[in-house]
Amino acid sequence: MLRFAQFGAGRIGTIHAANLASTGATQLRYVVDVNPAAAAALAAKHGAHVTDVATALGDPAIDAVIIASSTDTHAELIIAAARAGKAIFCEKPIDLSLKRVDQCLAAVKKAKVPLFVGFNRRFDPSFAALHARLARGDIGPVEQVIVTSRDPGLPPLSYIKVSGGQFRDMTIHDFDMARWLLGEEPVEVFAYGSCLVDPAVGKAGDTDTVMVLMKTASGRQAHINNSRRAAYGYDQRLEVHGAKGRLLAGNRTPTTVELADGASVSADKPMYFFLERYAEAYRAELAAFVDAVINQKPMPVGAEDGRMAIVLAEAALKSLKTGRPVKVN
Amino acid sequence: MLRFAQFGAGRIGTIHAANLASTGATQLRYVVDVNPAAAAALAAKHGAHVTDVATALGDPAIDAVIIASSTDTHAELIIAAARAGKAIFCEKPIDLSLKRVDQCLAAVKKAKVPLFVGFNRRFDPSFAALHARLARGDIGPVEQVIVTSRDPGLPPLSYIKVSGGQFRDMTIHDFDMARWLLGEEPVEVFAYGSCLVDPAVGKAGDTDTVMVLMKTASGRQAHINNSRRAAYGYDQRLEVHGAKGRLLAGNRTPTTVELADGASVSADKPMYFFLERYAEAYRAELAAFVDAVINQKPMPVGAEDGRMAIVLAEAALKSLKTGRPVKVN
Amino acid sequence: MLRFAQFGAGRIGTIHAANLASTGATQLRYVVDVNPAAAAALAAKHGAHVTDVATALGDPAIDAVIIASSTDTHAELIIAAARAGKAIFCEKPIDLSLKRVDQCLAAVKKAKVPLFVGFNRRFDPSFAALHARLARGDIGPVEQVIVTSRDPGLPPLSYIKVSGGQFRDMTIHDFDMARWLLGEEPVEVFAYGSCLVDPAVGKAGDTDTVMVLMKTASGRQAHINNSRRAAYGYDQRLEVHGAKGRLLAGNRTPTTVELADGASVSADKPMYFFLERYAEAYRAELAAFVDAVINQKPMPVGAEDGRMAIVLAEAALKSLKTGRPVKVN
Amino acid sequence: MLRFAQFGAGRIGTIHAANLASTGATQLRYVVDVNPAAAAALAAKHGAHVTDVATALGDPAIDAVIIASSTDTHAELIIAAARAGKAIFCEKPIDLSLKRVDQCLAAVKKAKVPLFVGFNRRFDPSFAALHARLARGDIGPVEQVIVTSRDPGLPPLSYIKVSGGQFRDMTIHDFDMARWLLGEEPVEVFAYGSCLVDPAVGKAGDTDTVMVLMKTASGRQAHINNSRRAAYGYDQRLEVHGAKGRLLAGNRTPTTVELADGASVSADKPMYFFLERYAEAYRAELAAFVDAVINQKPMPVGAEDGRMAIVLAEAALKSLKTGRPVKVN
Repeated sequence: MLRFAQFGAGRIGTIHAANLASTGATQLRYVVDVNPAAAAALAAKHGAHVTDVATALGDPAIDAVIIASSTDTHAELIIAAARAGKAIFCEKPIDLSLKRVDQCLAAVKKAKVPLFVGFNRRFDPSFAALHARLARGDIGPVEQVIVTSRDPGLPPLSYIKVSGGQFRDMTIHDFDMARWLLGEEPVEVFAYGSCLVDPAVGKAGDTDTVMVLMKTASGRQAHINNSRRAAYGYDQRLEVHGAKGRLLAGNRTPTTVELADGASVSADKPMYFFLERYAEAYRAELAAFVDAVINQKPMPVGAEDGRMAIVLAEAALKSLKTGRPVKVN
Repeated sequence: MLRFAQFGAGRIGTIHAANLASTGATQLRYVVDVNPAAAAALAAKHGAHVTDVATALGDPAIDAVIIASSTDTHAELIIAAARAGKAIFCEKPIDLSLKRVDQCLAAVKKAKVPLFVGFNRRFDPSFAALHARLARGDIGPVEQVIVTSRDPGLPPLSYIKVSGGQFRDMTIHDFDMARWLLGEEPVEVFAYGSCLVDPAVGKAGDTDTVMVLMKTASGRQAHINNSRRAAYGYDQRLEVHGAKGRLLAGNRTPTTVELADGASVSADKPMYFFLERYAEAYRAELAAFVDAVINQKPMPVGAEDGRMAIVLAEAALKSLKTGRPVKVN
Repeated sequence: MLRFAQFGAGRIGTIHAANLASTGATQLRYVVDVNPAAAAALAAKHGAHVTDVATALGDPAIDAVIIASSTDTHAELIIAAARAGKAIFCEKPIDLSLKRVDQCLAAVKKAKVPLFVGFNRRFDPSFAALHARLARGDIGPVEQVIVTSRDPGLPPLSYIKVSGGQFRDMTIHDFDMARWLLGEEPVEVFAYGSCLVDPAVGKAGDTDTVMVLMKTASGRQAHINNSRRAAYGYDQRLEVHGAKGRLLAGNRTPTTVELADGASVSADKPMYFFLERYAEAYRAELAAFVDAVINQKPMPVGAEDGRMAIVLAEAALKSLKTGRPVKVN
Repeated sequence: MLRFAQFGAGRIGTIHAANLASTGATQLRYVVDVNPAAAAALAAKHGAHVTDVATALGDPAIDAVIIASSTDTHAELIIAAARAGKAIFCEKPIDLSLKRVDQCLAAVKKAKVPLFVGFNRRFDPSFAALHARLARGDIGPVEQVIVTSRDPGLPPLSYIKVSGGQFRDMTIHDFDMARWLLGEEPVEVFAYGSCLVDPAVGKAGDTDTVMVLMKTASGRQAHINNSRRAAYGYDQRLEVHGAKGRLLAGNRTPTTVELADGASVSADKPMYFFLERYAEAYRAELAAFVDAVINQKPMPVGAEDGRMAIVLAEAALKSLKTGRPVKVN
């Protein structure tokens, strides 16, 4: 029985707590949130106690923590949890600043605690199956990777302002996907970014429409395209080209119904957004974390993965600002 | 809080109990099964008590029952539960004999208790969406219905021998689908049946490969094709033609991965069998039953639906034996 | 150089003449039609002469004839062409009356001339590829066949009145498809027919919406569904189930364009009607006829195929009238 | 009746001559080729005469020329044909050198003759339909364009050496597609290129695997991915994102046959290469040229289009060499 404390009782925290309950072999003992009502509701639902960070981390019975609070609290919580010797599941990103990320990694390394970074997409059944087929050589060595990732609609401007920008907030998932699929680290990033969805985004200093190119030392190439708005819903696709063929993973739809009428043959739009599309991925990533902690396996998505995604996001941002490709070490 | 007793703790009973738990607003109080170990395990999992039929039905605190025991026990349990005034969720079929079905319906009518027959496919998200679009007129009046329903593999011969035959055991779902989609009652049934999968099935007096035609009074037509074996998995599709177009609902796949290589462009086979394909349907049907009981709504799949499916199965069997179309009243 | 006379200069005759020209190694020498203007136009286009039946058949330089005139003239022309020793390509059907068909077959047999019946669908690239894969055993022995064949819209009532009825005029192609795919002759036919598209069709003594079941001696089964009206265009699909899998051949579309918008993900309707969908099939069947004549190969679709399709159509009509299955010898 | 001279009787010249014949209203009078046998064969097929450039261009009866000879002869022939006042259909590219392209354009402008550059893909039925839907506003203003273009296999090294490199030889089509779809001129190009298919290509100074990004003045973005080798055949797809949705145009397949078996559900690979995939496009582009000449319409793909594709190819090559984005004026 693995005992958990969870920081954050908002939308994503609620999902993690429910998935934790469904894994079995775990107990959610504490919930901590700046919003007492949210903390109380979630704690009540799972038979946990509302408490504060110090109490939660100070309880030696706690084995692991879930960090699902706002991004600006992640680093502090990781460092504190590491010092307290807890296994850590942290929502992406570790932090918006690479310097802060490195402090977290140092703390985790020093404490020798496992850190899992919540790149949930690696656990999407279709994406995981694509990766497994790459790994078993279905298309031979990878040559090019294309990641399509488009949100159904703009988040509130208030969110955009604190998000760290589109690359750190949105593309970060796609940087992780590209690294994971390339099988080699990118050594250079080039990016274009525009405001085509809403000029208010640009006034807030951000982009809403980006394209990225990356290459690896051996000459593999990756492309990412993002938009903050897709009229047809959440567009999440992977495409990998290798010496022996091509692997695609497409969108999922609510139903398989198809209508043929005088106008066209039409089918469902993709599932609306990440809560729908990645419901299984959220369950699977938490199960993988629990399994890795219990069975002392290496974390399937670790501290270095969290760091590299931020490194690539910063490089893309620098490329956007300078108009030049940016080397990545 | 609706209190339940459940009869049957086997594979499908385990699913119903889990789905019951997930509906909220319900409590599973009793589990009854001829296998004490199965009953104990399921009861333990859901905080229920193992008991016998008389005790379960005799407890005035019990509001509703789930009948998920073997088919030959359904009728007796329905009659007993009706007399005890319980709301009844019964796995299909009500009984293999129409006479016995009618006795059940009489008991239910007399006791004025609601009876829900577990035609889970009506609650499959794709099939439900297709039906909703029919209902709102997307393709105008229905003209022809085609139901494709093929199992991945033969059940054990021991099962086939007590199953009541392919029409009553397997096609029964498709008879319900056809009625539901036609929007009118079939008035005649014609059937062909062969043993093409395994001659042992024929020796046991059954078929493994059937085709059915049905028509309604206004001239609407339906076709059903069934096989006990589909090398590629569970093939479950609906096709409806109307004056203004065509609606299809296709198979679902585990993933959306597609491989293009030197041989072909290939994708996943359909989900393996009913537990995978209809997982959501099982959840939704139980939620619909609970909702109907709590809010005193009409049962979405009622006693008459259960009866008509058996009527059509018997007609198909008679058609197969006589080589002629059989009228249905 | 194979020299041709062609009877019929209407829509389908124009297509055959153009395809004949594209085969090379042929020359269209005569065109005969009751409409002098049509005959003159087609003859002019291909450098042929307008003439009458007697002259065309009396010219010993003529090797082969294309019969693309109205159905009621087919039998007489076949018999005359056979007596004149010409190789014969005849549009389906040979005749609407089985008795007349048998007279044609006797004449052809006596004269030892080759007769090709224009079941063009066997030459559709997708249908031909499906059949080739059946033949090479991709899905093992055939168990069930489903033929979907739906026209985009009702023909004029004047046409329906002389068409011989839906079974002889429309389903005849599907009877041929079913025989070809079953790999065994049907021994029994059962049919439903309704007037759901237009009551005027019923007043003219015909149906517009039919479903057929057939079985073979070994228990293989086939289903055909037809409608004279599909709002979304020409629906032409084959589905074959065997011991090792399933083969489908679907519709073809004008383009591969797909639109995803706020409403749905939509694609093209199927190609509009037979001239579009079967353009390649018409070319390929005539090339196959020419090849068979020149190289003295057996006709790929012969007299017996033309006869059996009529036998099945008559059986279906008798089934519709009697309400019973009809044996086929 | 438009009279043509054609330069080049090789593979693509043979296609153009056949398509010319099928347009009607044209006559191929002269064929010129460095290979006398090829010229004679093509001339014989179409009732034309073999001659030399001077004679062909000197004949005042010639209205138009088709330039389908080797790339290094295009510019000279364009200039000569322009001086002779002929309408010009020229295979892409105009020339590998921008300077030479500009000389051609000057000659054409001075002579006021129409010049059509053979960007055949604009006439592919799917791509043309996608463009038409963009133009009518189906997805609102364009935001991002993705062009996927992958050849089935490496051309001979001897070809690669004289091809002008992958950007000028292969990507040139995709630069044209991107411009056409963006609806604005690119102002900057960034490119990566590698040798992942065959190191011999690299030794010859070329790439076989490239990715390109481009942006327009208003911030629209385009991505191109190319490989000289796709194990599954010719991969030709367009994807356009706009404010109101997404348009895709996918690959075409030889048939619609789909096999479901114990392994997967599999379908045809894409059509093998450009001769198969773009057969209709080649016909349509020549018909468009003939129509524009006869009816004095503007050329649908003109001199400036031919020039801009070379400008973008040169910019991509410069980007590859310098490692930096390159401005385009």
